[in-house]
Amino acid sequence: MASPLRTGDLSRHHHILPAMPTSRTVFHTTPILPRGFTTASRNVGLKPTARDLALFVSEVDAAAAAVFTRNHFPGAPIILGRETIRRGVLRAIVVNSKVSNVATGERGVDDARQMATAAAAELGTSADRVLVSSTGVIGVRLPIGKIEAGLRGMSAELQGDPLVGAQGIMTTDTYPKAISASVGDAIISWVAKGSGMIEPNMATMLAYVFTDAALDATTLDTMLRTAVGESFNMLSVDSDTSTSDTCVIMANGLAGAVDHDAFQEALNIGCVRMTELLARDGEGATRLLRVHVRSAASDGEARRIAKSVVNSPLVKTMVHGADPNVGRLLMAVGKCFDCTVNPDTTDAWINGYQVVSGGLRLDFDEAIVRTALSADVVELEVALGVGNADTTAWGCDLTKGYIDENAAYYSS
Amino acid sequence: MASPLRTGDLSRHHHILPAMPTSRTVFHTTPILPRGFTTASRNVGLKPTARDLALFVSEVDAAAAAVFTRNHFPGAPIILGRETIRRGVLRAIVVNSKVSNVATGERGVDDARQMATAAAAELGTSADRVLVSSTGVIGVRLPIGKIEAGLRGMSAELQGDPLVGAQGIMTTDTYPKAISASVGDAIISWVAKGSGMIEPNMATMLAYVFTDAALDATTLDTMLRTAVGESFNMLSVDSDTSTSDTCVIMANGLAGAVDHDAFQEALNIGCVRMTELLARDGEGATRLLRVHVRSAASDGEARRIAKSVVNSPLVKTMVHGADPNVGRLLMAVGKCFDCTVNPDTTDAWINGYQVVSGGLRLDFDEAIVRTALSADVVELEVALGVGNADTTAWGCDLTKGYIDENAAYYSS
Repeated sequence: MASPLRTGDLSRHHHILPAMPTSRTVFHTTPILPRGFTTASRNVGLKPTARDLALFVSEVDAAAAAVFTRNHFPGAPIILGRETIRRGVLRAIVVNSKVSNVATGERGVDDARQMATAAAAELGTSADRVLVSSTGVIGVRLPIGKIEAGLRGMSAELQGDPLVGAQGIMTTDTYPKAISASVGDAIISWVAKGSGMIEPNMATMLAYVFTDAALDATTLDTMLRTAVGESFNMLSVDSDTSTSDTCVIMANGLAGAVDHDAFQEALNIGCVRMTELLARDGEGATRLLRVHVRSAASDGEARRIAKSVVNSPLVKTMVHGADPNVGRLLMAVGKCFDCTVNPDTTDAWINGYQVVSGGLRLDFDEAIVRTALSADVVELEVALGVGNADTTAWGCDLTKGYIDENAAYYSS
Repeated sequence: MASPLRTGDLSRHHHILPAMPTSRTVFHTTPILPRGFTTASRNVGLKPTARDLALFVSEVDAAAAAVFTRNHFPGAPIILGRETIRRGVLRAIVVNSKVSNVATGERGVDDARQMATAAAAELGTSADRVLVSSTGVIGVRLPIGKIEAGLRGMSAELQGDPLVGAQGIMTTDTYPKAISASVGDAIISWVAKGSGMIEPNMATMLAYVFTDAALDATTLDTMLRTAVGESFNMLSVDSDTSTSDTCVIMANGLAGAVDHDAFQEALNIGCVRMTELLARDGEGATRLLRVHVRSAASDGEARRIAKSVVNSPLVKTMVHGADPNVGRLLMAVGKCFDCTVNPDTTDAWINGYQVVSGGLRLDFDEAIVRTALSADVVELEVALGVGNADTTAWGCDLTKGYIDENAAYYSS
């Protein structure tokens, strides 16, 4: 039997959420699914006992859009998913965890197709309206028989708590992740999993966004790319990029039209919130890192520098140990050889406390910096003074927990 | 008193050295310095008891060349060193460990100049013939008074064992590193220290090459850049780039002319040998990683892909745990978005045992792969089948030891 859902767990992470303009967006205390959406999850024998298969279903056809990993070795579900999403219509998403169906060749694509067909049969729709995701070990054949058998009868278990679906897609996540918000009459829900191999384009990340707003597939595609660009794509746990990353949005229209600007704003905020939940729950993480880069020469340089800082093993271990070795911030900025960096105009702050001015380490109070680096959320801010581009990247500290999880991921 | 030198320690690392063409190069069992070179090291109070200051001296002026870090925040010794090396003549190198004199501004450059002046006074030469290096914590002022006092009388201790100098430049290295070889009548000696913040341009690496061959500064510069390009610059412990990297070569000519091709060959081989010693002694490392990329579309792409594999935390932890999760090799190749990668022509081997063919994970014997991944030297080979460019990169596994060393580097 699957372990009980820990719905209450999300609340302990609420304090890490950023203060953001939410004038038109109201987040729900307990996440819900929009009108017409339901989900179910089961253990079908891929994992010993934990839930390993999830369905997310709309009772009517939904407009849909998706973005996928840029890795050159995309998983079979990505190859199939790119074909499926071209039609811009989905009824369901079926996801298994434990085996990612990557590097499995044509047979893997056939397995993914069979998984879509089995889910479609169970739900009374067509396979080309079912998007498939798989996450887990690379290079192992999908146990398609277990999945087909496990899907049978699953439609009877569909219900409205997004955390039930979230639990079925977890790998090394420590808790299921779902949030939801209201924008006008519409609802948006986010269900996602992390939590290693995340960079720079959403690796080992599966994120599903559901809404009852009425939006066409082309509009959804533009909106999704905008939101992902400033949230999931600025998330990095370890600089590795998964072969399975997928972010899908489905809009079934049951709530009618919605103000596009308000929807985009809510979509952006929710994606950032989910990004922070994923970063904070990165493999072995004990801290959330927010890296703000300001006054860079261009957006591209701001992103590169922010990623360099958030990915630096020496910055990440400095934060983990709350060790005020702040020169490492300059090192991580300075190793972006092709970016415009002027030591004389480079300043840096840790949780608002300035530690570098004009490229020089200030004679700061070490106790203050140690306390700042020990906080649950550590904000590293670098102002370059060479332009007008600002950005934010998210990550986490590097700990022995990461080593433990990844030195025996396949074997455990 | 400093701890006794562990000269014999090097021998236990000899088994990791590669089989290379050494027809004209004879490496010495016990490293020596070339004619006219001497070294000394002392504890001058920067560290509690370990040696923290080293001198390397030629009895006559030597032609010299150097390459330095590309980090935008070079340490004060790098700023001064670029000026010093322009003349192409050196008599000595003075190095301190513990404090790197980085992010210390104009005062730091003055301190570095004072360090050169003090060493020159002790040795009876001019400050512009003394190259200064510092390695250690970033952003802390150099204790120049202790260094000046410590240098006094040090010339009386100059002697011929390169390991004595090597011990004075160590930070987190577990043993002093020096090797030497004969090429014709000439001798070449390498003295270096690692061992974190190494990538992609020799970070936290100090490497000094001494020879009694007669070669002019321009020739030395070309030869050094060639050797560094295929050795130290392909070394990565953690993807971070130090603000202090320095590689210097001094040639005092006491052995007369040398065959240039034979010298270049010996220089290349010695730099690769030293690269492997540094990689194997990377912070927390338990394995040496050699990543061979073959048949890439260009040299640049071969290097990018090799660095991506050798830097991937998921590949490094896979090796550490001897976990046959070989799909991670494809992930690390595939995340080089801008490189030419064709899954159908991608093959991979671990210590000569094929695990991937045509982008597919083979149904290999897991016990064999676990054994291969448990070896002291793990060779990861990827053939891309899209061109004619080959390269090799060096690194190490990622362990809890790395976290331990870097979560409290400043504080300890």
